[in-house]
Parts: sequence; structure tokens; C-alpha cells
Amino acid sequence: MDDKSTTIKDLKNFVEDFVKERSWSQFHNAKNLSMALTIEAGELMDIFKWNTLEECDLKMSEKSSRGEAIDELADIFIYAIAFANRNHINISQAINQKMLKNRIKYPADKYKGHF
Amino acid sequence: MDDKSTTIKDLKNFVEDFVKERSWSQFHNAKNLSMALTIEAGELMDIFKWNTLEECDLKMSEKSSRGEAIDELADIFIYAIAFANRNHINISQAINQKMLKNRIKYPADKYKGHF
Amino acid sequence: MDDKSTTIKDLKNFVEDFVKERSWSQFHNAKNLSMALTIEAGELMDIFKWNTLEECDLKMSEKSSRGEAIDELADIFIYAIAFANRNHINISQAINQKMLKNRIKYPADKYKGHF
Amino acid sequence: MDDKSTTIKDLKNFVEDFVKERSWSQFHNAKNLSMALTIEAGELMDIFKWNTLEECDLKMSEKSSRGEAIDELADIFIYAIAFANRNHINISQAINQKMLKNRIKYPADKYKGHF
Repeated sequence: MDDKSTTIKDLKNFVEDFVKERSWSQFHNAKNLSMALTIEAGELMDIFKWNTLEECDLKMSEKSSRGEAIDELADIFIYAIAFANRNHINISQAINQKMLKNRIKYPADKYKGHF
Repeated sequence: MDDKSTTIKDLKNFVEDFVKERSWSQFHNAKNLSMALTIEAGELMDIFKWNTLEECDLKMSEKSSRGEAIDELADIFIYAIAFANRNHINISQAINQKMLKNRIKYPADKYKGHF
Repeated sequence: MDDKSTTIKDLKNFVEDFVKERSWSQFHNAKNLSMALTIEAGELMDIFKWNTLEECDLKMSEKSSRGEAIDELADIFIYAIAFANRNHINISQAINQKMLKNRIKYPADKYKGHF
Repeated sequence: MDDKSTTIKDLKNFVEDFVKERSWSQFHNAKNLSMALTIEAGELMDIFKWNTLEECDLKMSEKSSRGEAIDELADIFIYAIAFANRNHINISQAINQKMLKNRIKYPADKYKGHF
């Protein structure tokens, strides 16, 4: 699979098939999925919690910790897609609209190089 | 924008342009982004924390709380994509490989209808 | 140990001794500890994520899951106390002042039975 | 209020009175409170997310950001105490028992100065 040719809809179908095969949509209400998402994000943080910012960069270049981080990131995407599936959310549109708000909130000339 | 025609690479470019225009990649190390991701996931949970599972479904059908949740979900996607951009992660492949592990860990016949 | 006779200062000393014996205060800056706190809170959630509210009550009365939850809650207290130790925070005063703000924000007569 | 003379039981009563006056214990099941705890921990992280470790120390010495952090830490304590109240957990004992496990898992001589 390749990010250039894989569409959001492909990933949605991919996740939905997995959930349907296990009849797990009954557990996928918004409250539970928001918890699952946060837990996975916490597991991603767990890789970095005691490290300096420089050590974290190193961890992302070492095979074992990089692999762990990629797996945790995948879990976050999977639950985020499952949330969109269950609630009929157009992901591309959601991102597009939020980025428009961000562009207004953080004009490039005013926020260049700081936050 | 449409999930059927939008590729992961499109979204990656979309987020990367926003980050580059603001020279924000300096803040986007793995530690900081994993925190940002968890904070946004926490904000998604915040919509549902005191509600029953049924009330949460209702909230996802009411315009104002649905809009809020979609914005928070978008933020999660944006930071997850930014994490992938910064660390040169193939998102489709990451999801594919994690789902393969999940299929082995949770065989459909054994986990049908329960977890 | 007993909640009636144990003071906050007792717990602060208890945690500080553990940290000092390992020379771990070097890792206990505010950023790292806020991450550790959130990760532990995520682990507490992990016990409840797929359960209904009623099932969660049951889990808190079953020995094994109750024991797990108590351990996660202890971790949250330990990191919160470590955060206070490192940053010279008077915990009782902090709680007292936040509760005063809460009493003003949520007057009992107006918020009785709802949120 | 003073950490030397305030007992855990004092804080438990303090939080319980607030919850009872508002009849909020109905919302305080284990699932909801674990979410509330994580959300507050996320808000504490939010103060530090884009800062270096050194900048975070500075933030803890500046009045306004220090005050914010203390308020978020208080919220974490309040929800952790509410969780203990609702589920009849002896906090001092929970911390004591978890620290005993930690002492076995991380012997001081083996973990001195690293993790």
C-alpha cells in the first residue's frame, strides 16, 4: 500500500471490513472510541515521556522504537477512521474545514516561526 | 474534498504546506506531536465525558455538538499526519501492517461479538 | 496506612524518598511529568473503554479489575504528588483554591442534579 | 490549608461535600471519572506541549502559567479523590502498595540515575 494511490475511502473500507467481521460496531459508540483514541495516543507518548527532544528524534531513527511508534500511530489512525465510519464523517472535508479555520486563526505572516 | 478521490498523499501535502508556511516543523518533534495528539483526543472525549452511551449517539446527531466533534477529530488527523510527515512514515503501510497483526491477535471467529 | 491519619506531607515525603533514592528528579520536569500523568490516566481508562456504565461499576467490585484500577489510581496520585514536590506546590491550598473557583462557577442551587 | 496538617480524609470530605451538594455522584461512575481525569491531565500537558524542557521549568516559575498549572493539577487531584470516594478506595494504602511494587520493580541500586 502506498500513500500516493491509497484514498481515504480505501482506508475507511479496510477498517470497516475488520470491524464488521467481528461485529464490533456495537462497541464503537462515540464515547468508547474517543477513549480508545486517547489511550492509543497515550501509548505513543509513553515511548517518549522521559526523553529529551533530541533523544526522541534518535528513537524515531532506531528500528525497534521507530517500529513501536509506527504501530501506535497506526492504532490512532484506525480508531479515528472507525470514529468517522460509525458517524458518517467525511474525513477530507473535516480536515479541509478545520485547516481553513486554522489559517484564519494563525495567519502565516503573524505566526511564522513561533506559536 | 471527497474521501473517494482524496489520497493520503494529498492530505500529507495539505498539512505539510500549512506547517511549512509557518516554519512550525521546528516544534514538530515526536515528543511534542504525541502530546498534541493526546490533548486533542482528550478534547474529543470532553464532549462525551458525563453522558451515557445513548446520549453520546444523540450528541453525534445534533448539529452543534456534531460539528465540535468533527473539528476535534480533524485535529487528531492533522497531528497524526504531521507526525507521519515529520518522520517519513508511510501511513497506508503502517495501517496495513497493524491490521495484519490485529487479524492474527483477534481472529474473527473467536472474537465475533465480544472483545 | 490510613486516610484519617496520613497527611499530604507524609505522602509527599514518601514519594520524594523514592525519587531521591533513584536520582530520578532529573527526569521530573513539568513536561515529562504531565505526560506520565496522562499516560497513567489513559491506563485507568483502558480498564473501562468498551464497557457500559453498569459493567464498569461491576468491574470496580470484582477483585482483579478493582485491584488493577486501584494500582492505576495510585500511579496517578504518585505522579501528581511528584509534580507538586518538584515544583513546590502546596497541594491542600491548590485544591482549596480550585474548589472555591468551582463553587462560584457551579453554584449548588443552579447545578443540582445536572451539569 | 497546609500539607503538614491536612489529612487525606480531610480532602476526601472536602470533595465529597462539593459533589453531594450538587447531586453529582450519579455522573461519577468509574468510566466517566477516568475520562475526566485524563482530560484534565491533557489540559496540564497543553501548557507545555510546544516548549523545550528548559522553557517548561521557566513556565513553572512565571506567575500566570504557574497558576494555570496549579489549577490543572488541583483538578487532577479532585477527580482522583472523587474516584476514590465513589469506589471506597483507601488512598494511602493504594499508594503504599503501589510503591512497594515499584521498589521491587525498580531497585534503587540498579536504576540509580537512569530509567
